[in-house]
Amino acid sequence: MIVKNYQEIPAEKVEMAGAENVTIRWLLGKDSPAPNFYLRLFEVRPGGHSPYHTHAMEHEIFILEGIGRINAKGETFPVSAGSFALVEPDEEHQFENTGETVFKFLCIIPIEK
Amino acid sequence: MIVKNYQEIPAEKVEMAGAENVTIRWLLGKDSPAPNFYLRLFEVRPGGHSPYHTHAMEHEIFILEGIGRINAKGETFPVSAGSFALVEPDEEHQFENTGETVFKFLCIIPIEK
Repeated sequence: MIVKNYQEIPAEKVEMAGAENVTIRWLLGKDSPAPNFYLRLFEVRPGGHSPYHTHAMEHEIFILEGIGRINAKGETFPVSAGSFALVEPDEEHQFENTGETVFKFLCIIPIEK
Repeated sequence: MIVKNYQEIPAEKVEMAGAENVTIRWLLGKDSPAPNFYLRLFEVRPGGHSPYHTHAMEHEIFILEGIGRINAKGETFPVSAGSFALVEPDEEHQFENTGETVFKFLCIIPIEK
């Protein structure tokens, strides 16, 4: 059993091209015994966004704080605390802060085996 | 892409023996295209708890609101908003509301294949 607070986990700057003002905390990542999926917490500062990109793994998302939108191919979805999403494999997506406070969300991904 | 608010998903009473005052919302469950894991939201009312039990699948947990504790074999972990946990396969566990407001948490489980 692992029990912690997310604030115990360092926030690392996301350096990927196209990311602006985003940090990631790997709550349950490679260094944990998580057997099937990883739990990460993203914080996007006002004006920030993740890259607009696509990949083979899905995301499951839950918005914790702030307001933003999920940009997809030809569509945009406004989200706020309590919103959740499934980004299916190979779907284009971007998470963007549209508010004036931190936009904070959980993102769960499968472990590649 | 699926984007919704958790309140759009009905809260179903957990009828399992040992559960008291608990509901579950299957945010991304069997009826969704989630490929690898399911996202559920539990709400435990004051005085309530999940069953003390064990099973082969892990849980990844993130506490959204309220205060409570996770009871494990010979240990108990106080938790509140921002706490997260990994309940490893076959670990005994129970989620208990120790506060006076709803204790709300996300619980992600693998899809059995």
